[in-house]
Amino acid sequence: MCKPNYYAVIFTSKLKTSHPEYSKMAELMGTLAKKQPGFLGMDSARDGIGITVSYWEDLESIKLWKAQTEHIKAQKQGKNDWYSYYNVKICKVEREYEFRNEEDALL
Amino acid sequence: MCKPNYYAVIFTSKLKTSHPEYSKMAELMGTLAKKQPGFLGMDSARDGIGITVSYWEDLESIKLWKAQTEHIKAQKQGKNDWYSYYNVKICKVEREYEFRNEEDALL
Repeated sequence: MCKPNYYAVIFTSKLKTSHPEYSKMAELMGTLAKKQPGFLGMDSARDGIGITVSYWEDLESIKLWKAQTEHIKAQKQGKNDWYSYYNVKICKVEREYEFRNEEDALL
Repeated sequence: MCKPNYYAVIFTSKLKTSHPEYSKMAELMGTLAKKQPGFLGMDSARDGIGITVSYWEDLESIKLWKAQTEHIKAQKQGKNDWYSYYNVKICKVEREYEFRNEEDALL
């Protein structure tokens, strides 16, 4: 158990329909986010609902990413063309623990 | 924009292989979590990586769910049989905002 001190942005979304352009843009946003100051990591899965959780050093890093030029374009296009719904939660990670299968670790 | 005051548990996991028993247990855990005091909601998607985010009124509710009898059995079985990896992050939700497509809202 460690006591971390960083932020998570939980982005849950529903798409209107499957847009081929959407996957390209989502991939580009992932690539661009990685270049942002304070970016720590990202997990993403879509299975009916889409969940993307990105991790950031502080609130300032999150603010900068929200205001990044290409990201602003994607946010607008997302609202106009792709999403029927989305929700963004900005969270402080207070505790964290993990499990790794030992057999896998030996591979 | 509202300023919420609740907790999110971000559970990310990788399965060793696809186990039919796993889906049943995951579904049962979802049903049981909903009956717990302080449970507020849950979002889940699996697509290579699995991401389940559950929402809780406070840290005490999260502690009670972690210690729930059936859930303890599932955690043990998860470590022994299903997961090659998992990570749990306990987070305080500090800000939240959402978007709903107006056309959908009119349906």
